[in-house]
Amino acid sequence: MAGDAIKIASDQYKVVLENDRIRVLEYRDKPGSKTGMHYHPDVLAIPIASGKFKFTFEDGNSMEVELKPNEPVFMQGHSHITENVGDTACHVILVELK
Amino acid sequence: MAGDAIKIASDQYKVVLENDRIRVLEYRDKPGSKTGMHYHPDVLAIPIASGKFKFTFEDGNSMEVELKPNEPVFMQGHSHITENVGDTACHVILVELK
Repeated sequence: MAGDAIKIASDQYKVVLENDRIRVLEYRDKPGSKTGMHYHPDVLAIPIASGKFKFTFEDGNSMEVELKPNEPVFMQGHSHITENVGDTACHVILVELK
Repeated sequence: MAGDAIKIASDQYKVVLENDRIRVLEYRDKPGSKTGMHYHPDVLAIPIASGKFKFTFEDGNSMEVELKPNEPVFMQGHSHITENVGDTACHVILVELK
């Protein structure tokens, strides 16, 4: 399991709220930005500004995803590298479940 | 315990995603709109467009709250009436925890 998002990718993530049930992260990036491999537990991603991402997983597979406002995406716990492969700065709220 | 938000206040709430851990609601209203008394389990409110609300609780007490983008608010499970007492239409994503 890779490390914590806010340690591995501290330029992109910050913690905005945490309690015993959830941790809420704000993610902001720029076109071309790329994180190291990091772990999220089960997480809901709520896009505020849309973005086009490439996620690369620990097994080497990758997937491109377009996130759009008002279209939250739930992901089960896993590790990935996040790369902004679009031409816009992206802004996402992530709700990690404990 | 009051009824489900999406039954009691179907003009304001819709379900945008649900699984075994969470239910995600989108809330939209107009100035002056007022719901009936409804229940939320533990919930994270993520304001997209800011709003000024009056919440009235089952014991008759009430509280005014201003919700602002990038300032998520966590509330423990409870019932309330939601009234938009500001002069802007409001838009909030709610993540209910199961």
